Amino acid sequence: MNKPVTSDVAGKRDVQAVKTVCDVLAQRFGEQFQTSEAIRGQHAHTMTYIAAQPPDGVLFAQSTGDVQEAVRVCSEHGVPIIAFGTGTSLEGNVNAPLGGICIDLSQMDRIVQVNRDDLDCTIQAGCTREALNDYLRDTGLFFPIDPGANASLGGMAATRASGTNAVRYGTMRENVINVMAVMADGEVVHTTQRAKKTSAGYDLTRLLVGSEGTLGIITELTVRLYGIPEKIMAGVCQFEDVDSACRTTIAAIQAGIPVARIELLDALQMEIVNAYSKLDYAHKPTLFLEFHGSQNGVDEQTEFFQALAEEYGGSEIKWAERQEDRNRLWKARHDAFHAAVAWRPGAKGVPTDACVPISRLAECVEETRRDVEELGLIAPIVGHVGDGNFHVLPLVMMDDPDEVSRMEKLVKRLAERAIAMDGTCTGEHGVGQGKMKYMAREHGHGWEVMSAIKRALDPGNILNPGKVVRF
Amino acid sequence: MNKPVTSDVAGKRDVQAVKTVCDVLAQRFGEQFQTSEAIRGQHAHTMTYIAAQPPDGVLFAQSTGDVQEAVRVCSEHGVPIIAFGTGTSLEGNVNAPLGGICIDLSQMDRIVQVNRDDLDCTIQAGCTREALNDYLRDTGLFFPIDPGANASLGGMAATRASGTNAVRYGTMRENVINVMAVMADGEVVHTTQRAKKTSAGYDLTRLLVGSEGTLGIITELTVRLYGIPEKIMAGVCQFEDVDSACRTTIAAIQAGIPVARIELLDALQMEIVNAYSKLDYAHKPTLFLEFHGSQNGVDEQTEFFQALAEEYGGSEIKWAERQEDRNRLWKARHDAFHAAVAWRPGAKGVPTDACVPISRLAECVEETRRDVEELGLIAPIVGHVGDGNFHVLPLVMMDDPDEVSRMEKLVKRLAERAIAMDGTCTGEHGVGQGKMKYMAREHGHGWEVMSAIKRALDPGNILNPGKVVRF
Repeated sequence: MNKPVTSDVAGKRDVQAVKTVCDVLAQRFGEQFQTSEAIRGQHAHTMTYIAAQPPDGVLFAQSTGDVQEAVRVCSEHGVPIIAFGTGTSLEGNVNAPLGGICIDLSQMDRIVQVNRDDLDCTIQAGCTREALNDYLRDTGLFFPIDPGANASLGGMAATRASGTNAVRYGTMRENVINVMAVMADGEVVHTTQRAKKTSAGYDLTRLLVGSEGTLGIITELTVRLYGIPEKIMAGVCQFEDVDSACRTTIAAIQAGIPVARIELLDALQMEIVNAYSKLDYAHKPTLFLEFHGSQNGVDEQTEFFQALAEEYGGSEIKWAERQEDRNRLWKARHDAFHAAVAWRPGAKGVPTDACVPISRLAECVEETRRDVEELGLIAPIVGHVGDGNFHVLPLVMMDDPDEVSRMEKLVKRLAERAIAMDGTCTGEHGVGQGKMKYMAREHGHGWEVMSAIKRALDPGNILNPGKVVRF
Repeated sequence: MNKPVTSDVAGKRDVQAVKTVCDVLAQRFGEQFQTSEAIRGQHAHTMTYIAAQPPDGVLFAQSTGDVQEAVRVCSEHGVPIIAFGTGTSLEGNVNAPLGGICIDLSQMDRIVQVNRDDLDCTIQAGCTREALNDYLRDTGLFFPIDPGANASLGGMAATRASGTNAVRYGTMRENVINVMAVMADGEVVHTTQRAKKTSAGYDLTRLLVGSEGTLGIITELTVRLYGIPEKIMAGVCQFEDVDSACRTTIAAIQAGIPVARIELLDALQMEIVNAYSKLDYAHKPTLFLEFHGSQNGVDEQTEFFQALAEEYGGSEIKWAERQEDRNRLWKARHDAFHAAVAWRPGAKGVPTDACVPISRLAECVEETRRDVEELGLIAPIVGHVGDGNFHVLPLVMMDDPDEVSRMEKLVKRLAERAIAMDGTCTGEHGVGQGKMKYMAREHGHGWEVMSAIKRALDPGNILNPGKVVRF
């Protein structure tokens, strides 16, 4: 408790403290605590080009009590502690730059309670979004947030994740009702009750959502559920340029069409999707769409959208209503990452994301597109266009230092461009290690305020040190 | 900065410090700074039975810079500073129990920018919700959040206000995109950019929303706007009991009907509404409804709802489509407070609110109804039933100490009942002074966390001391 972890990432680890903590945890938890190189390696950041920094040991927690015990031991000895769900975050969020103990929550995957009348459910942090939706299948309810990976719901909350449904259903910010979290002192906080609204004090739920394990370790959470719509219709609409696709999107949202999904794929990404998924779309900027509602409601939405798209030169929409057809279409969209990596054998995909006000999106995408060309990179673009959020995926030969440096330039320019357009350096991937360098520019004095909160709630800097804030 | 304000509400004021601050502000701000008894009185809590505690002086701020200057002077001398919008909060939120300086933001009422493509706008904190909607009239857009009073948008953000539209459009929590706030050290924080989504760090926006001026003074904010629906249909449906009205509501929400407003009035409130607004509804639990959407969409919603209501014994719905008819209906609903106070001449209305999971609402309302009878009080009930949030309005002869004490019992039992039902002691009025005593019970260790944040961001306890948290 009294031994703050230095935030100097190059700082020396206290080898003796780590050893002591490992001994205590091994004795207390037996097989639940592992220190083999293989398991430690699996718990470092493994998703992108950011170098892996494994922890010194991994505790497979089975209860909030386990987490409390581990946090107390680590706190006493000033040893870092990093929460881990499925390890699918993209900015080095689970790396252990100062070593320490990883708390793997994947075995805490219980569905605690489904409240059908209240359209909510409580799950343990390690439950994945797909497991939850499988469980809910017979209830007529579903949980809409869908980041690319089958992430754990605790991890999704910690990263403030979203995905393709956010334009209609919101992100984890809007869909987490409360969380149970173990704080740096080992105390458990239940951030709020289960009522839909409250004005009773500070919004601790939304403080923990998006804090990436730096303020507390989420062990349980309650999320909102939705009725499965009576009718779902998916479709594909192609445009001559990105601006027309964006203009159509803006017009649809202004008109109040409750689009459920509206995803932009640029011409290169369409070429890649065709090759990977054996499809034959034109190599043009394309919107993948989905509408949810009643029979009549969806008919009305789709007709209205088709008419709007035509005003902006959009193609006739290819519709898919049967579940298998919709699944094929969305599989092509969700495979965008793997398809892109397969497109350039030997290359590493380096996903980055930014988000701007939707009015600036076309401009931001176009400028980024020009950047890609100017820098001589191969980098398809995919966007959650209804939210102004998009991803660029440079495909990089990591053994070519010049290409790596050009990729880094692209990522930097994109983050700075988004911030200059009143947007953010990350719409849904989180800060982790990768976006730390843009926080001061994006938040100004606000970053100091974040850091003051961190110091107040984790004075020893043991919770995921080196991420999100400056200690 | 170095002179913390004691949180002992009975504590002594530092008379000399207050005098110094008043002298400095008078010299700097001239007529903008007022200390007359009349003006100070207008800036104490004036809405309910909580005793008025006026500030020592009132600064009519005209810019964020004015607020910064005043905060710096107060901070230097350890004098409390209380932000004030329209003074319509209900729990003593703007009272000055330790004296100090009130910052009246009502002259900062400018509409800074409307971004039609992004469906948002930036306003100064003193702009009222009605002024904003008047301004927006020709744009086809509107701002939906409607607490009873014509409150300032800064005040609504600070209290995390909502109203009758929250079931469809959310509360200030969901509808504030960012705020500009002056922190206790006089620094300005802009909580986030204007992008719809972000994963870049702690959610300072939602930390300030609902903090009731205890963490920072909101001087400007960006809020979400919505397209005015093509069709709006209002209606009134009466039931034999509260449970049937609640069951109908739950079924409608589960079925995904996007009800815009669904308000419960109990039998007594209907009797009062009839008398005040010269209407002739049955004295039965009643739902006031509104549906928004396209022509077909609203027809579908209303037909579906009527069928559902009939399953639970609801009456045939009386519809109102023309704007003047809808206005008459909603005026009757919005007049509920004044109608109730007129119902018992000489009585003071003491509004209180609570919020529970919707599955517990009928039970909570019924138990409260029984409490009212058992305690021999007159207290109509009105509820935002789609959110599980409801208001009880005891009409109390304040010169009858026994009746006052029975009213206090009612309020206490309601708060404790709501908390026991996994709900909250306030859904939309805020904590202020009135709900402080329930915070520990509702939040447990979470209240300590809130207080730690307060101490970190306002170490001198100058911002609205005595509210929300324990210092």
